[in-house]
Amino acid sequence: MKPIMEVAGLIGVEEEELELYGRYKAKISPSLWNRVKANGDGKLVLVTAMSPTPAGEGKTLTTIGLAQALNAIGHRTVAALREPSLGPCFGMKGGATGSGKAQIVPAEDINLHFTGDLHAITSAHNLLAAIIDNHIFQGNALQLNPQRIVWKRAMDMNDRSLRSIVTGLGDGNGVVREGGFLITTASEVMAVLCLSEGFGDLKERLGRIIIGYNQKGEAVTASKLGAVEAMTILLKDAIKPNLVQTLEGTPVIVHGGPFANIAHGCSSVIGTRLALKLGEIVVTEAGFGADLGAEKFMDIKCRQADLNPAAAVLVVTVKALKYNGGAAKDKLHEPGMQELADGLANMNRHVENLKKFGVPVMVAVNHFADDRPEEVERVLAECGALHVPAAVSKVWAQGSAGGRELAEALVKLLGEEDSGYRPLYDLETDIRSKIETIVREIYRGAEVSYSPSALRSLADIERLGYGNLPVCMAKTQYSFSDQPRLLGAPEGFTVQVREISLSAGAGFAVVQTGSIMTMPGLPQSPAAEHMSIDEDGRISGLF
Amino acid sequence: MKPIMEVAGLIGVEEEELELYGRYKAKISPSLWNRVKANGDGKLVLVTAMSPTPAGEGKTLTTIGLAQALNAIGHRTVAALREPSLGPCFGMKGGATGSGKAQIVPAEDINLHFTGDLHAITSAHNLLAAIIDNHIFQGNALQLNPQRIVWKRAMDMNDRSLRSIVTGLGDGNGVVREGGFLITTASEVMAVLCLSEGFGDLKERLGRIIIGYNQKGEAVTASKLGAVEAMTILLKDAIKPNLVQTLEGTPVIVHGGPFANIAHGCSSVIGTRLALKLGEIVVTEAGFGADLGAEKFMDIKCRQADLNPAAAVLVVTVKALKYNGGAAKDKLHEPGMQELADGLANMNRHVENLKKFGVPVMVAVNHFADDRPEEVERVLAECGALHVPAAVSKVWAQGSAGGRELAEALVKLLGEEDSGYRPLYDLETDIRSKIETIVREIYRGAEVSYSPSALRSLADIERLGYGNLPVCMAKTQYSFSDQPRLLGAPEGFTVQVREISLSAGAGFAVVQTGSIMTMPGLPQSPAAEHMSIDEDGRISGLF
Repeated sequence: MKPIMEVAGLIGVEEEELELYGRYKAKISPSLWNRVKANGDGKLVLVTAMSPTPAGEGKTLTTIGLAQALNAIGHRTVAALREPSLGPCFGMKGGATGSGKAQIVPAEDINLHFTGDLHAITSAHNLLAAIIDNHIFQGNALQLNPQRIVWKRAMDMNDRSLRSIVTGLGDGNGVVREGGFLITTASEVMAVLCLSEGFGDLKERLGRIIIGYNQKGEAVTASKLGAVEAMTILLKDAIKPNLVQTLEGTPVIVHGGPFANIAHGCSSVIGTRLALKLGEIVVTEAGFGADLGAEKFMDIKCRQADLNPAAAVLVVTVKALKYNGGAAKDKLHEPGMQELADGLANMNRHVENLKKFGVPVMVAVNHFADDRPEEVERVLAECGALHVPAAVSKVWAQGSAGGRELAEALVKLLGEEDSGYRPLYDLETDIRSKIETIVREIYRGAEVSYSPSALRSLADIERLGYGNLPVCMAKTQYSFSDQPRLLGAPEGFTVQVREISLSAGAGFAVVQTGSIMTMPGLPQSPAAEHMSIDEDGRISGLF
Repeated sequence: MKPIMEVAGLIGVEEEELELYGRYKAKISPSLWNRVKANGDGKLVLVTAMSPTPAGEGKTLTTIGLAQALNAIGHRTVAALREPSLGPCFGMKGGATGSGKAQIVPAEDINLHFTGDLHAITSAHNLLAAIIDNHIFQGNALQLNPQRIVWKRAMDMNDRSLRSIVTGLGDGNGVVREGGFLITTASEVMAVLCLSEGFGDLKERLGRIIIGYNQKGEAVTASKLGAVEAMTILLKDAIKPNLVQTLEGTPVIVHGGPFANIAHGCSSVIGTRLALKLGEIVVTEAGFGADLGAEKFMDIKCRQADLNPAAAVLVVTVKALKYNGGAAKDKLHEPGMQELADGLANMNRHVENLKKFGVPVMVAVNHFADDRPEEVERVLAECGALHVPAAVSKVWAQGSAGGRELAEALVKLLGEEDSGYRPLYDLETDIRSKIETIVREIYRGAEVSYSPSALRSLADIERLGYGNLPVCMAKTQYSFSDQPRLLGAPEGFTVQVREISLSAGAGFAVVQTGSIMTMPGLPQSPAAEHMSIDEDGRISGLF
């Protein structure tokens, strides 16, 4: 690893614009933004993926490898990534910092406490929760209805026992009510931080958070509880983007990591904007497959932050295509040209969808050592037939050298095709129309059915004046539909909307299809049991 | 503020031995310890206080001011302090970083997230909790009794609603059982970290933590759950001491902050040991009054870590003495020579008690602007009659200049009197004898009565082989007795022991007298509501 000062120097960041966290991590001081904000923007490239499968597609890996390769061929590139959550590290093995020769480092620190952003978000979230219960306990001047407090508590841990709890038991210990914990990445404070443009905007958004309803049924916001300034104080450093590097010393801004189902799944607006001032090209990613991640990136993040994505790279793998073509999970390494051919429908649809946002699209085939040449050729041939640029990426095995072809194809695409980025839907239509546009245009479902509760929420949201918000779809990532087993490119299905809720601070209406887990559990044999650390602090088994 | 590198230079710490957290905070790398461990030790001075009162005695203030003054008169001095907890900042106004001209800085950062130690402790604590509930959910191979899990969860927040909760409600969400949250400073992980000598010792202590009992009634430890390595990984940076400075640039090691009732209330052993290698004099403090803080410092921390305290400074104030002599809380600024004279009994007993540990003792009269000269003279005259050195401290108003007299008196004492430090009791006696020795010798109670449950616990602890642990008394800090309103120097009372529990990882038996709050609540008008932060990140109202 290079000292982070040196990495910062590559993109013109000066020593006094960094706040060091050890030798290899830094927060970027707001003074940098003030110095560079009048500069022109680099080109923003989204790395997204086909529908996720158990085999893993390597979206983060490809993002990191692509940034390394672009730098290697002479284009000053910054990657803008999400911050990993600590909790899941102790459940299933695997970090969120890439792998092989395309990693961000120091990977252990980034996967653990990093610069404390998630802890700060947890604290701000739980301060609001404590203030709410204290308000009720101390006389409840706002007449909050304890049965309709929607603000839960948060913890960055996989702990299923905290999903549904009863708090306030015992004499003098507050008011008995039902509650629960979210994992911190699912906190609206995380989504708010990621969409904020600065301190002022952060405060306004925190103030707009709906914490529950009063006895008259009116929504009560965080601003009414007097919690906003203190929450902002807790977030004063978390709002500053973090700078780290890839294994090849490419600068990477890692900042914010909201859930990709009940939230928008993109790294921070502040981080992306800053990266665009520092890099000729900025490579970023969004959660899950393109039906969720790219749609939210385009319709929520880019629209709100006035970002203009220059291109989208769709990551596919031979294994994931075969899986989507019907191959069994444990047979993905076996020959299966028919399954591969059938699975290409999934890729094709994601490509078609991305084009609906007006951005140039290309495909990155993330190469595995046991992929067969004829399988890779088949994918490239399909792309050729679709007139979509494609390249094989071997960044896992070779780092930037393995991403050269991909980087060159991307640069060519950026040079040849201008982006005509546009969101999929207008904000001025009602929430229901927005949902139905996404289902029709992106998922390709035949219709949408709403639970009675969702219909009531729809009416409430329009009545409360939030009808002009974008929608944030919470749907299984495994299928275009809301049914995880409908692989490939299904059509004609009905999407069931179970519930619609407001994230008024983040600025979107969350549309829940199916049951969405906001607090994961640990598996039978948690990864935590297989880790170790020696006397010198060397860790093994973390990922 | 000086750059922390410069402060480190004053005590011979080199640049590569620091891990910077911004410009003004740093963690100290283990390489420094390896370099200096063979050096001789400085002199360790404990700053403790008379019985606490609502007026505030200024123990932390005096510790900081004394360190500044010792440096000013040419003695290289390092202060070793406890880390503040974040949660209480949002309840009652007031930080834990001193005040006036005797503060440690950057005070806001130290009172908020600092270098993340408390967050790391929270995470390690809650990982163990999640693993316990997951173990039960996944088949309960260890046959844990869900009704006898003693390991709670932790949060660094004042949130009374979390004191007593029911977790695991709902299908698939674990096993329904009673639980609750402690504030992080009350976590045994905090006590363990503060008493650990290094990674190996940390792991052993974490492994010895008793998390509950199995169906046969046997104690089950964290080591049985396979949680220890992962917890240690979470603590890998928290175990490194933090370096900051006073307003006058005096180096201060701030590390660890365990509760002073159910835990031992002292900063970390690792931090103190390191400070002793770097300073000619090390000034440290312990929680609450000398009956609790100093007793635990001497009997738990110094004994276990083989530290040899050279002197104790007892902080008193005119107001606190009057309060202990019967003056009303709102009349402490009025003349009251009789109340003052009566209250001196409290000071005298603390002095007598401290001498029982074999250490030279002096009194610091922490001066308030509205103290009358005759009141201050009366206190000094009393000390003269007792043949106890005493000095007036004006460090709040004047910084080191106001501590010169105190510093000179301390240096004189250190030069004239050798310490014959000895703990109050032998470890080899049983738990009951240890309790009774403390009650007789320090509290001056007539007898101890035990609840039936405490008697059962006593028998269990001896049977399980933990009878040789020191005891950690959890008692009101306001009185020598277990009755908060018995001020001054009461005698003849009976101490009621309600419960005795094992902190087997920290290495002590916790003796609860009265009800001890391990999760505070927020007041009617929380400090959080009166804070603000502007567009440039400037905070007001935090303390």
